[in-house]
Amino acid sequence: MEERIAAQRVTSAGAVPLEESVAVEAPLTISLNGENWVTTMRTPGEDEDLVRGLLYTEGIIGNLEDIHQITNNENNIFLEGDFDITHRCSIFLRSSSCGVCGTESLPAAKISHIPATGFDMAINLVQHCLDALRSAQNVFDSTGGVHAVALFTPDGFISDIAEDVGRHNAMDKVIGRHLSELPLHGFGFLLSGRISYEMVQKAVRAGSPCIIAIGAPTTLAVDIARQHGITLIGFAREGRFNVYAGAHRLRE
Amino acid sequence: MEERIAAQRVTSAGAVPLEESVAVEAPLTISLNGENWVTTMRTPGEDEDLVRGLLYTEGIIGNLEDIHQITNNENNIFLEGDFDITHRCSIFLRSSSCGVCGTESLPAAKISHIPATGFDMAINLVQHCLDALRSAQNVFDSTGGVHAVALFTPDGFISDIAEDVGRHNAMDKVIGRHLSELPLHGFGFLLSGRISYEMVQKAVRAGSPCIIAIGAPTTLAVDIARQHGITLIGFAREGRFNVYAGAHRLRE
Repeated sequence: MEERIAAQRVTSAGAVPLEESVAVEAPLTISLNGENWVTTMRTPGEDEDLVRGLLYTEGIIGNLEDIHQITNNENNIFLEGDFDITHRCSIFLRSSSCGVCGTESLPAAKISHIPATGFDMAINLVQHCLDALRSAQNVFDSTGGVHAVALFTPDGFISDIAEDVGRHNAMDKVIGRHLSELPLHGFGFLLSGRISYEMVQKAVRAGSPCIIAIGAPTTLAVDIARQHGITLIGFAREGRFNVYAGAHRLRE
Repeated sequence: MEERIAAQRVTSAGAVPLEESVAVEAPLTISLNGENWVTTMRTPGEDEDLVRGLLYTEGIIGNLEDIHQITNNENNIFLEGDFDITHRCSIFLRSSSCGVCGTESLPAAKISHIPATGFDMAINLVQHCLDALRSAQNVFDSTGGVHAVALFTPDGFISDIAEDVGRHNAMDKVIGRHLSELPLHGFGFLLSGRISYEMVQKAVRAGSPCIIAIGAPTTLAVDIARQHGITLIGFAREGRFNVYAGAHRLRE
């Protein structure tokens, strides 16, 4: 499932407006016998397959007959049945960000205001940053299995980098190291992978006005970037990139 | 952080044993004022930066002074301080798999026994599967932002495919569609991305003897595959691949 999003494609020949297909990311809340069990971010569609598979792989059901009824209501799915939650751990992998509460917005306490001006970047320096990330990552990563997140300045220099099997972890490591310097109005985040809504929320929280990623954004990532005035650049590779939000911070 | 893992590199010229660098994936449990708060899978190292950044981006702390003390004990980190958990949602994104309980093993109830024999694949059909995945994914994915998981047979055909912004979701969708046909002893999983421990656990639960991925595995993924006798193939691209476990299912 995808949406068409207005963007600009920037190459050495200049910027061209276009519509880009972006993968939809939206929360699905799963209720078991009337109680909320979990909320997961997913691409809508095939929700019942997803829930059946998740309940099975988590050991909540042993077969299809354990599910007596499924009711599907857009981003909520309600199940009645025989659910075994005794085998589950009481711990959870990663907590949610508040973007999942259904409002898709951050609580005021978590927002750093991002100034509209004061961070300007020449478009030819985007590739400069990417090259620097690539060389830095080659040094650190011989596994091909970790994500990198770097801090960069608008003059095209990388000032810090962290790596992790989890891209959210890599971003948290960078932010953790710079907590005493927040807000990061003068720095952007460079991502080796894709841009989920959580990565944009973390940038908002850190006060950074710009994200450049090698991978694609999700719809929710674009929404949050636009809402908070963040410049969002995706598919940055081989001398070109797409701008999904905040093009005013880029100059020839 | 990485480990050296014994593997085989397979090309058209044959199989060569080698040691591969694999990214370490291990659980980190974070305790706030004596209570377990969350367990997250991460690459060990920079754990204190990770925790500081996560607590800040989740809105639990507002600045460094809110943390009075950090004690770091390998895969457990204990913090004392002023923690604000009122802004947090009561819902969680995705539950953990039980591999995170510290034992790194699945409870018996979640294991499907995987037969050592009965699934044999010619090595030249691995590339055949990859080509089929690529064409199937090109049809569905015009966003560049979703992961694909497919079911394949040892004769190199793809029998099902699902896509999602979350690779675990894509795998759950496929498993959910085939719940009435479990265990999937005659099918392997083909992954468009990397192999985390959770993906291997899902294959174990579904009873599938083989995983082929375009991306890299983590250390924990290799451990679980070896423990349950699953054939694990990573970096499958451009006519070559690495075998990390279960090479006995492959033949010339």
